[in-house]
Amino acid sequence: MTHCAHLLIIGGSDAGISAALRAKELAPSTEVTILLSDNFPNFSICGLPFFLSGEVSDWRNLAHRTKDDITREGIQLLINHTATAIHPTEKAVIAVDTKGQKKHIHYDRLVIGTGAVSRRPSIQGIELPGVYFLRWMTDSFAVQKHLIEYNPQSVVIVGGGYIGLEMADALVLRGLRVTLVEHSATVLKTVDPSLGEMVSAELQSRGVAVATGISIEAIQEKGNQLLVIGSNGFEAIADMVLVAVGAKPSTQLAESAGVELGFGNAIRVNRKMETNIPDIYAAGDCVETWHRLLQKSIYLPLGTTAHKQGRTAGENAVGGNAEFAGSLGTQVVKVFELAIARTGLRDSEASEAGFDPMTIESEIWDHKVYYPGAHKLRIRVTGDRRSGPLLGAQMVGHYQGEVAKRIDIFATALFHQMEVDKLSDLDLSYTPPFSNPWDPVPMTAQTWSQRFSPYSYKGDT
Amino acid sequence: MTHCAHLLIIGGSDAGISAALRAKELAPSTEVTILLSDNFPNFSICGLPFFLSGEVSDWRNLAHRTKDDITREGIQLLINHTATAIHPTEKAVIAVDTKGQKKHIHYDRLVIGTGAVSRRPSIQGIELPGVYFLRWMTDSFAVQKHLIEYNPQSVVIVGGGYIGLEMADALVLRGLRVTLVEHSATVLKTVDPSLGEMVSAELQSRGVAVATGISIEAIQEKGNQLLVIGSNGFEAIADMVLVAVGAKPSTQLAESAGVELGFGNAIRVNRKMETNIPDIYAAGDCVETWHRLLQKSIYLPLGTTAHKQGRTAGENAVGGNAEFAGSLGTQVVKVFELAIARTGLRDSEASEAGFDPMTIESEIWDHKVYYPGAHKLRIRVTGDRRSGPLLGAQMVGHYQGEVAKRIDIFATALFHQMEVDKLSDLDLSYTPPFSNPWDPVPMTAQTWSQRFSPYSYKGDT
Repeated sequence: MTHCAHLLIIGGSDAGISAALRAKELAPSTEVTILLSDNFPNFSICGLPFFLSGEVSDWRNLAHRTKDDITREGIQLLINHTATAIHPTEKAVIAVDTKGQKKHIHYDRLVIGTGAVSRRPSIQGIELPGVYFLRWMTDSFAVQKHLIEYNPQSVVIVGGGYIGLEMADALVLRGLRVTLVEHSATVLKTVDPSLGEMVSAELQSRGVAVATGISIEAIQEKGNQLLVIGSNGFEAIADMVLVAVGAKPSTQLAESAGVELGFGNAIRVNRKMETNIPDIYAAGDCVETWHRLLQKSIYLPLGTTAHKQGRTAGENAVGGNAEFAGSLGTQVVKVFELAIARTGLRDSEASEAGFDPMTIESEIWDHKVYYPGAHKLRIRVTGDRRSGPLLGAQMVGHYQGEVAKRIDIFATALFHQMEVDKLSDLDLSYTPPFSNPWDPVPMTAQTWSQRFSPYSYKGDT
Repeated sequence: MTHCAHLLIIGGSDAGISAALRAKELAPSTEVTILLSDNFPNFSICGLPFFLSGEVSDWRNLAHRTKDDITREGIQLLINHTATAIHPTEKAVIAVDTKGQKKHIHYDRLVIGTGAVSRRPSIQGIELPGVYFLRWMTDSFAVQKHLIEYNPQSVVIVGGGYIGLEMADALVLRGLRVTLVEHSATVLKTVDPSLGEMVSAELQSRGVAVATGISIEAIQEKGNQLLVIGSNGFEAIADMVLVAVGAKPSTQLAESAGVELGFGNAIRVNRKMETNIPDIYAAGDCVETWHRLLQKSIYLPLGTTAHKQGRTAGENAVGGNAEFAGSLGTQVVKVFELAIARTGLRDSEASEAGFDPMTIESEIWDHKVYYPGAHKLRIRVTGDRRSGPLLGAQMVGHYQGEVAKRIDIFATALFHQMEVDKLSDLDLSYTPPFSNPWDPVPMTAQTWSQRFSPYSYKGDT
């Protein structure tokens, strides 16, 4: 492999910055340039709801690193430059700045980290003023401007996924009346319905009106307000509307350069994060993601994954031989006082993938109940009944119940293909304020094993 | 293996109860009897400091299970019966009740779970009234009685280990002036000195007088008070004294029956929890413990381990073939607002065991610092620099920083012999209120790798 004199990265969010940092760490003499279309490199877009809630008072605090932090690493930032074309044979990228000035930038290796864009469902009136999306910093500035200038008293949020739920929390905190509409039967459809119901209950206890099983069809102006119309006769009036129904990979630039797309029209990459075109890598929300359990690529955009893929791309772009270890879809969200987390496959997903899954649900105190502040965790564990391996786990509990890191114990076990039966062999920490002598993780596993394990010794009588 | 008609268990704490429950689960027709010398089966002795602090208002709440819970499982409880002899050839145990009545109990298999007793250091005057130990329920009743009857205003705690630290916290909460004396250079010598210093600082910030490097030599009556005299001219006067300098295995009964002792004079067992005598198993704080990393047995009494060993013994006693997977010494303690946890080996321990360890210490926010309530975690990671495997981790941080379960991620990685380098491959959960896109666990691992990894790709330039 030839020396990489100049590594060019398109995109200055998680994947792009991770690629740049890793490349500079390993090959300090490589020139590394990041091209980004806005002025917000390395911002934590996962933090936007906390900016809009008022919990983060200054949006600048959302930066993982400042521009100075980045350039101090020897990385060049070309802000406000939009890449408009990639010419693989010339190894060049064309970029224009905000004044329309064109730049022709040579690369030895290129990392595409263009991320994703908000999905815009086909709702009549979605273009009306007062209807917002939330993905990038500029989106959040638009929402914030509206909140300040118009002082809205009510909002309809379309979509009960992560952003929708976090924004419901954020805008209740900000004093708005919130109606949340979800087209599935329960909110947060990334977890099983019984857990989604717990999230609905939490929302409702905070005054959020939750409408599920509703497809939004139209938004209309009604005086100074917006009327939101959906299936089953749904109607709601509010001062503003937020549409949060997911994201799709931003791939136009790549596609026009001949970069092949794969699952869900995301950029096709191998586990080295190479595209089909030599010397072009891609990473983050614009690419398909190798799933460690499914052993195939799917579309599963997550910030954690973007960091890992970017790091892998950056390492390989300067001559390394790293492989992305794969995603387990581990994720967590906080909604009011609840933490909701999952890793691996749910029962339905495991069935589709050809496993023979069995799932149990149990409720266990997060720590010894005699110690103040104990809360119950609801845990679902899925394992394969033919051969015993853990396939996935989901957990809901109080946000101080170490839900996130308990899911990570499951995730670490999943990473190592542990059998459900063997979770009780893990030597986990215990003190009454933080756990039980058997942590809820092995306790749930024991419940699973009692019912389904093909291995558990059943006694000699 | 012959059928086990009667399983007899000596000891009704963690190991004994776990053995009984597992046996009953697997072999419901086996008769299971637990013999215990007091009236407190299955009590959480780890909870005693929280009873004495007043946080647990009724000592009965310390029971993991009530007597009814236990007998409902079909387990017989013989309370207030002290086993005085084991006759392996007759397969019988002699027990006496509180009135001196003798019982001769036949067993097919026997599990010894006699636990540990407080170490009594050779301190002049240690037998004086007002000097207490804390291990079993009756110890805690004695302390509680003293607190209520004499309303002491001050206490000297001898020993800066788990019980000493938890009791310092508890008695400050109860309004006493606390002096804590530790013979080592720092408190909590189960973690490295830099972390022990953090614990000292926390104690001092709560008004605890901490004296380290002091050996206590004598306790004398001084009016209604006790004068505690130590090395280096140490003197302190207090209304009561608590001695908490560790525990030693309770093995007299086993030894007199010909059961072999091993490391630290604990009962020698193999990983099936078998002793040298056929049909006699042992588990819990009275036995030596197989260490998964050291690949040898040491003495490392922990409640979590007692549960696992008891479960293994119970399974095997009714004909199973389970093996104790080994301890990693994972443990956590809460001291005021700090959680302090560890797993695996410290640098010094790893060196002694023939590894070539390198340790780094780093300080990382527990979650995105822009989200309210972020605290710094201090993490030490030890890995082998020749071959890269993780050897251990230690962590100190705010008690709401998910320290315990973060150590468990390390513990789960250790269980699978992961290399430090590979920790960044773990798919861990992230949302700004709970973590960073790279959790502190892989972040610390990356810091280690940057300095010591034999594997990390260092670039082509």
